[in-house]
Amino acid sequence: MSENKIPYKIYLSEDEMPHTWYNLRADMKNKPAPLLNPGTLQPMTAQELEGVFCSELVKQELDDQTAYFEIPREIRDFYKMYRPSPLVRAYCLEEKLQTPAHIYYKFEGNNTSGSHKLNSAIAQAYYAKQQGLKGVTTETGAGQWGTALSMACGYLGLDCRVFMVKCSYEQKPFRREVMKVYGSSVTPSPSETTNVGRKILAEFPGTSGSLGCAISEAVETAVSTPGYRYVLGSVLNQVLLHQSVIGLEAKTAMDKYGVKPDVIIGCAGGGSNLGGLIAPFMGEKLRGEADYRFIAVEPASCPSFTRGEYRYDFCDTGKVCPLSKMYTLGSGFMPSSDHAGGLRFHGMSSVLSQLYADGLMEAVSVKQTEVFEAAEYFARVEGILPAPESSHAILAAVNEAKRCRETGEEKTILFGLTGTGYFDLVAYEKFHDGVMSNYVPTDEEIARSLAQLPVVE
Amino acid sequence: MSENKIPYKIYLSEDEMPHTWYNLRADMKNKPAPLLNPGTLQPMTAQELEGVFCSELVKQELDDQTAYFEIPREIRDFYKMYRPSPLVRAYCLEEKLQTPAHIYYKFEGNNTSGSHKLNSAIAQAYYAKQQGLKGVTTETGAGQWGTALSMACGYLGLDCRVFMVKCSYEQKPFRREVMKVYGSSVTPSPSETTNVGRKILAEFPGTSGSLGCAISEAVETAVSTPGYRYVLGSVLNQVLLHQSVIGLEAKTAMDKYGVKPDVIIGCAGGGSNLGGLIAPFMGEKLRGEADYRFIAVEPASCPSFTRGEYRYDFCDTGKVCPLSKMYTLGSGFMPSSDHAGGLRFHGMSSVLSQLYADGLMEAVSVKQTEVFEAAEYFARVEGILPAPESSHAILAAVNEAKRCRETGEEKTILFGLTGTGYFDLVAYEKFHDGVMSNYVPTDEEIARSLAQLPVVE
Repeated sequence: MSENKIPYKIYLSEDEMPHTWYNLRADMKNKPAPLLNPGTLQPMTAQELEGVFCSELVKQELDDQTAYFEIPREIRDFYKMYRPSPLVRAYCLEEKLQTPAHIYYKFEGNNTSGSHKLNSAIAQAYYAKQQGLKGVTTETGAGQWGTALSMACGYLGLDCRVFMVKCSYEQKPFRREVMKVYGSSVTPSPSETTNVGRKILAEFPGTSGSLGCAISEAVETAVSTPGYRYVLGSVLNQVLLHQSVIGLEAKTAMDKYGVKPDVIIGCAGGGSNLGGLIAPFMGEKLRGEADYRFIAVEPASCPSFTRGEYRYDFCDTGKVCPLSKMYTLGSGFMPSSDHAGGLRFHGMSSVLSQLYADGLMEAVSVKQTEVFEAAEYFARVEGILPAPESSHAILAAVNEAKRCRETGEEKTILFGLTGTGYFDLVAYEKFHDGVMSNYVPTDEEIARSLAQLPVVE
Repeated sequence: MSENKIPYKIYLSEDEMPHTWYNLRADMKNKPAPLLNPGTLQPMTAQELEGVFCSELVKQELDDQTAYFEIPREIRDFYKMYRPSPLVRAYCLEEKLQTPAHIYYKFEGNNTSGSHKLNSAIAQAYYAKQQGLKGVTTETGAGQWGTALSMACGYLGLDCRVFMVKCSYEQKPFRREVMKVYGSSVTPSPSETTNVGRKILAEFPGTSGSLGCAISEAVETAVSTPGYRYVLGSVLNQVLLHQSVIGLEAKTAMDKYGVKPDVIIGCAGGGSNLGGLIAPFMGEKLRGEADYRFIAVEPASCPSFTRGEYRYDFCDTGKVCPLSKMYTLGSGFMPSSDHAGGLRFHGMSSVLSQLYADGLMEAVSVKQTEVFEAAEYFARVEGILPAPESSHAILAAVNEAKRCRETGEEKTILFGLTGTGYFDLVAYEKFHDGVMSNYVPTDEEIARSLAQLPVVE
């Protein structure tokens, strides 16, 4: 089919939407390292994990052999309410940049949660419901994951208890209110409702909380409340599995028009969006069927890929979670108050970490004000106000397209536009007012944080 | 095609998107009454109107004979960035309500302005640009129109000066910030920058402003600044013309699947969304080709159709605008601080007013807390957090579907879901906290306001 016929937005029909998730691990020669029990330093067993997670999700977490998992009909029906998400040809951006590059983005923000997080939220809530559970607990930082999970639980009639990082709880009352619309209870973290919360409050009175701390509280609540399990919106293998729907849809849409991306770009916090977007493309690369460049974009304020170490670490501050082998800045690392809350995590998905360690993927880090410049530019040209997280990918894509302008290369660029910035306007205001920081941690800070980690052979 | 094959969301292809707007007035036997010069009480001439509006828009405003206006290619290209909007089959809502009715909604909220307003904003900005103007002025209440116009002007590189009702300016800093992202200047109204603003401030120190007052300031600025014109987001004939893209898309999508709505429902403030949604269907009714029921839903706090009078009135508080014949509560009517800011206008489109006077359309008014109950119900079932304005239509559609449950009728209901409620969470919070008012004006209040109006024979 001729390139001329490519519309501004490609929507798959319902029939073309994926019926299975794709498990990238099945095609990896070097499998991601297993989760370890922090007490015994032995790989976590299914039984151990089932105290925290739903059984079906534990299966998905541990299975690195099965390539495809069927998406249950109920989840596919829910997907149909807000998916397929459009694959957008950025004609206006290309013209404005005067680049010969062809730019596409997969836009995951057109739903009330405002991001891709809903793809895994509905899956995790569904399996909890199937198992006959009463409810789930989780943490949320910027609030996108908490909102997504609230929507999924509200739909299924499942109780949802969200621990929201205290500074976000106070600064983002609107996110909190959306969760309440969907019937969730939202507790500022650290709180007096858990042992770990009380301990942290005693140690650091007046603390405004952290994602790692909220995770600890949510896990403690789940394991100590009958009929409850914990769910997590990123980092885990199961989450990347569910998010593969992004990449599968994108690839089907591109295949339909005979388009092959040369470079695929995504922002990377815990890795859920990037892992989902690249999955089927990386699968082809691993199987030797095609080649692509992959670029992870992270904030310079929290650069786990580009400045962290590949080793075992805790996912949470309270050290109640299993150890995961990943690129990490150390679980004690306190990222500066960067406005891309979704990228402010010290570690990275173990799947992506292994791919990066094997040289299958590149990573770059970018500064906050440059990200917001790209965000505003994009908003004016493409008409979508992007989330700060997503704008990391925009910046890298624009830079790539500018290079093409210089070299004259007609590259095809695909990037993930994970969400909208409607709840991030305080950040935009700071950017306009010229009071946005560009803090980058020193080598000493990172070394100090990494020195605290357990040594695991 | 079988009903079973109707997907959750119907997206037209780019080829199927309308190439023309439809001018409902061409098919009306009783034409809407002309705008009058408030000094001479004679119909406004094109020349008089061109001091305020762009020439091309004046043509559209005055033309009640031409049925179709071609949509310029540049506007169609802009439409492709965020349109077609989906026509959604509300399967989940139908199931939850256990109704035999088939419910469809045309969802206009999936763009950064958050509403249908962008459809007319880009058209008005385009014609201003074509005429070689430097910029445009406008007013905004809730902020949706101001945001939409800012996006359109940002895209075209046109200066945009927005007068924002002061209480909204203060209560909705995020809306204000989005407009700034798109490069607009935003002034709280009443302001010291205009004669009418200074006069109102002297008369009512500390006033928090009103839409009618902001209109006066925007008009004054436009007529007194070389290279500027005024643009308006609702009420006018030209706006209804541009908004016909909503109804045209909806009808094409329904025709494609052989579906014919029995009843078409929309919220009504100034009438831009309702007028656009019903246009092609009402056209068929006027030409005797088909029959439909049309229902306008307005807030009980500002009930121009159901409790106003059909007569000439000013559109603004400062009385600088032409007189329009419409259902009105009186231009001095001060609606209570209902949270559906977009529906808080004392008058109504003259096109819709004439249709209502001729018995071609019905109207109902609904109370605020009932609207929010419907909004929250809808959010949980259909996954979209609706704007308060749109939720008026949701409530009426749900009520209609419930009646079908009782009678067993398999009616097909179409309603307009004009926008999202991401910037309305203060209202949702008030609803949750049980402090939302249900104020309804007394007969005396309305009579007093109407008694102030000029008598026009």
